[in-house]
Amino acid sequence: MANYVAPLKDMTFLLNHVADSRGFNQIEHFADFDPALVSAVFDEAAKFAGQVLSPLNQSGDIEGCHFNDGKVTTPAGWNDAYQQFCSNGWLGLALPEAYGGQSLPRFIAAAVHEMWLSSNLSFVMFQALTQGAAEILLSANDDSLKQRYLEKLVTGEWATCMSLTEPGAGSDLGNIRTRAVRQADGRYRITGQKIYITYGEHDLTENIVHLVLAKTPDSPPGGKGVSLFIVPKYIVDQSGQCGELNDVRCVSIEHKTGLHGSPTCSISYGDDGGAIGELVGAENRGLEYMFILMNEARLSTGQQGVAIGEMGYQRALEYSQERTQGRDLLSGDTDVQIARHPDVKRMLMGLRAQVTALRALSYQIASRLDLAEADPEKRAAHLRFVALMTPIFKAFSTESGNLMAGTTIQIFGGMGFVEETGVAQLMRDIRVTTIYEGTTGIQANDLVFRKVQSDQGEALTELIADIESDFACYAALEIAGSETEMLVQLIAVLKESSQFILQQGKEGRETLLCGAVNFLELMGIACCSWMMMRTAVAAYEQKQQSTDTLYLDNLIALSRFYFAHFTPKVLALHRTLISAEMGIQDYRFEE
Amino acid sequence: MANYVAPLKDMTFLLNHVADSRGFNQIEHFADFDPALVSAVFDEAAKFAGQVLSPLNQSGDIEGCHFNDGKVTTPAGWNDAYQQFCSNGWLGLALPEAYGGQSLPRFIAAAVHEMWLSSNLSFVMFQALTQGAAEILLSANDDSLKQRYLEKLVTGEWATCMSLTEPGAGSDLGNIRTRAVRQADGRYRITGQKIYITYGEHDLTENIVHLVLAKTPDSPPGGKGVSLFIVPKYIVDQSGQCGELNDVRCVSIEHKTGLHGSPTCSISYGDDGGAIGELVGAENRGLEYMFILMNEARLSTGQQGVAIGEMGYQRALEYSQERTQGRDLLSGDTDVQIARHPDVKRMLMGLRAQVTALRALSYQIASRLDLAEADPEKRAAHLRFVALMTPIFKAFSTESGNLMAGTTIQIFGGMGFVEETGVAQLMRDIRVTTIYEGTTGIQANDLVFRKVQSDQGEALTELIADIESDFACYAALEIAGSETEMLVQLIAVLKESSQFILQQGKEGRETLLCGAVNFLELMGIACCSWMMMRTAVAAYEQKQQSTDTLYLDNLIALSRFYFAHFTPKVLALHRTLISAEMGIQDYRFEE
Repeated sequence: MANYVAPLKDMTFLLNHVADSRGFNQIEHFADFDPALVSAVFDEAAKFAGQVLSPLNQSGDIEGCHFNDGKVTTPAGWNDAYQQFCSNGWLGLALPEAYGGQSLPRFIAAAVHEMWLSSNLSFVMFQALTQGAAEILLSANDDSLKQRYLEKLVTGEWATCMSLTEPGAGSDLGNIRTRAVRQADGRYRITGQKIYITYGEHDLTENIVHLVLAKTPDSPPGGKGVSLFIVPKYIVDQSGQCGELNDVRCVSIEHKTGLHGSPTCSISYGDDGGAIGELVGAENRGLEYMFILMNEARLSTGQQGVAIGEMGYQRALEYSQERTQGRDLLSGDTDVQIARHPDVKRMLMGLRAQVTALRALSYQIASRLDLAEADPEKRAAHLRFVALMTPIFKAFSTESGNLMAGTTIQIFGGMGFVEETGVAQLMRDIRVTTIYEGTTGIQANDLVFRKVQSDQGEALTELIADIESDFACYAALEIAGSETEMLVQLIAVLKESSQFILQQGKEGRETLLCGAVNFLELMGIACCSWMMMRTAVAAYEQKQQSTDTLYLDNLIALSRFYFAHFTPKVLALHRTLISAEMGIQDYRFEE
Repeated sequence: MANYVAPLKDMTFLLNHVADSRGFNQIEHFADFDPALVSAVFDEAAKFAGQVLSPLNQSGDIEGCHFNDGKVTTPAGWNDAYQQFCSNGWLGLALPEAYGGQSLPRFIAAAVHEMWLSSNLSFVMFQALTQGAAEILLSANDDSLKQRYLEKLVTGEWATCMSLTEPGAGSDLGNIRTRAVRQADGRYRITGQKIYITYGEHDLTENIVHLVLAKTPDSPPGGKGVSLFIVPKYIVDQSGQCGELNDVRCVSIEHKTGLHGSPTCSISYGDDGGAIGELVGAENRGLEYMFILMNEARLSTGQQGVAIGEMGYQRALEYSQERTQGRDLLSGDTDVQIARHPDVKRMLMGLRAQVTALRALSYQIASRLDLAEADPEKRAAHLRFVALMTPIFKAFSTESGNLMAGTTIQIFGGMGFVEETGVAQLMRDIRVTTIYEGTTGIQANDLVFRKVQSDQGEALTELIADIESDFACYAALEIAGSETEMLVQLIAVLKESSQFILQQGKEGRETLLCGAVNFLELMGIACCSWMMMRTAVAAYEQKQQSTDTLYLDNLIALSRFYFAHFTPKVLALHRTLISAEMGIQDYRFEE
């Protein structure tokens, strides 16, 4: 399979002209931030993704990870790539310089992170873990933990993992059974079994810092009694040096349908008396800390949908321009590139349009995180936006990613079903992304109840206002045609659906629970339509000062394609939402 | 993974009360046809599927087929199962008794075939090939071929395979390069390379009868110059006995992402001077014959969507009733079966509703094939219906099957991504079904241009009349509620879309080519909605004379669920259809 080529032109266009990062150089906070540096960073990252990570993607899938007597060996090439990745400073790109990071804005890190995910998703899964773990340590306000762990994590000298799930506690973390008992020295003894621990054990680093959720004796029941502990594979002393092996053991790794290069571990803590753990922050605040990491992981997971979509698009475009088959049903030409068949062109454009819209959304979220840093006055509004978008982006992008992997295979035809071409791997790798870090159903409930109802619709109302304002810009363009009618309907449907959610009280709760996923998808399409309106407007404006007409006209065509092929889905989703409980209430499982 | 349990109750309900098979015992042609026999056949088939084929499904996936020096070895257990399958008479269930078959109606064969496909899709892929090959021989009117081949194929003593695709000719079979040169004895010398030959080589039978498309010298270009040949692995003499090995060689088998138990072969014909082939029918009529088999294969492929959906539903239901997690967000109960979470219940009902609708459609098509036999006067109308439904059922059912496999994994959560649970195999196995026997795009073009436009909408108009008549029955029921409004819209959209297709002349051709897949999906949902109206009506009527209230009420609930969660999609599909070329015409690939 051909190596990944970072779509720098598309990325740069969206960052410079579409996402809110477009106004960055006018913001004081980023005043000393050199655009030439961005370009240099992107070039280097593109090189590393294309030349180092991408070539390992298929070999890593074929070889997989090895488990032997508690040890996990990553696929050939992983270790070298990891050392280079860290020594090049990629790991801590958006983390503080004070701890060995680069302190670059999030929007740059988002574009770079997407390159890693496209080129080798299995490999780079540790990065979001490190980003999240570092943010937990930064927020937990414990100088000893910061001093001893942070720099080693940010530089990649040590790795981290997130130890949440247990056989009886997946989506419901309040149910965990892992115990933590405080000792005289203030440290804890941890005992319990954890499963599905990504990079829970491996051969890449000297030490692995496990972030473990556990319950202390007499803690309150449910999620309110969960605490977070640092449990290093090798115990770290007060000076920050690795000492003896902790009572932590990798029991097995999973045999998964995809992500073969990423070890998914079952870990046993405390078989031999209790693993030594250090409390993060205060007891019983574990889920709160863990959600810092979880939100980070959800954004990264959303990006995985974009990244696999991009990889699929690249492969499908290349294949469909090489493969000739059949007659052009319009011109009558024979043996044409299959890319010229309208149905294949439709699929290719569908891939590029979805990737473009979701990528823009990803950069938009990252930009608002940056703006939250830059502008304390509007910080709350920016964070409200990010909180609203997190479940939408996580779930909608990964659901789209699965569909895009399917479309890629479809374009390849029979060749897509053959493993050698590498596109079946995209389908296998992406499949778990709608599950881990909270399933689509969980994201939908988070959206409807926490992000819309509990918020009294504040963030949502602000979002709709933004969409309306960008629609006005689009509709005013001379290029706007009959599709504006669909966009007018989109906004109407969006308002109606939002009102519907906000108006439901207790008696409407079942309808919301049954229709939450429909609302989430509706929001996903609305946000992507929004980004495509912005894309079209930006392309139109750029045309006034650029000669890159083909590229810019294609972006406009892609936007209109989105409005014709994706936006109409909101009509169906709205219809389902408002009677979502139909049949479900009356249906009884037969025992 | 638990074994497959044939859903006999659902199957029987749909056959007896929903599909057109419901009136069978009143038709003279089937007068001597004993319902007790049907029941006995179903019981035996269910046993064989559950106890013999299903246990081999996962082991066959893990082991796969072996290739060594031209020989293919099927997975452990395959050979025994094959011998039993044939000696029990399952292979020729719907083929003539005169040649060793059972002459059972198609609607019975359809239900039984679904059991095989659910329990072990990889294994049973040979059956549709045999069914199709037998029908070719029956129609080709060549007594020598019939006498020497037919009984051996129908009884399974010999197997068959369909040798169409070449590296440069997949969807476009007019492009094949395999040559056939007539010899003095009337037989032909065949030379060429074929790929993607399902069961092209294996260890199950003494002989394998290859049906090979090839071109004779000076034949017309394109599809009109393609002929069909029988090329047996061992040459068959005039008395029907196997003689020496033919010049046919299996070169390799594919390493696929799914269907590991079904060998997909590359075959080389004539490396050593030319394989001996016998012409079927007349020269240059190869595609016409092959389409007899192809239509058979398309209907079988459509059933694969139903079958994998059913298997996924069974597994997901079982898992979601065992697995407890989280709090019931309505009652507040803790540690509830995940099946009780509204979003999971929604997914489970979605699986059962889709399977029910598609299964009913499958039986409806089979019934109309039977009716075509039974009633010469209406034969043309019945066959018109089947011709119209073939691309819809093939493509929509397999696209749905892919989505259903995804939903099954989603219900399993993290466990679904782990291969041991067996549900990832469903996703891998089903993936090729939207590709082989004609991609979804090809089915959509067949539907729009051949089955609707060329037919002047005759079959489609008849279908819409049927749907309207069943809607009237549904709307008249006391149980009909607000969903009738959606059904009224469905019929309106169906008529508008049909008119749109019929009204497009040459200048609208691009729109149709870009929107054909949308029209096909719209038709699929319309037909499934139709079957669910019939299901609800039948359940309502049965309630007057049955005490099986829970079961029948659930069917009604399932129908209403379908109208709320699936039927609304036609609103979006119609919208996309009528402006499907938007953006596509203007988009130019960058070289």
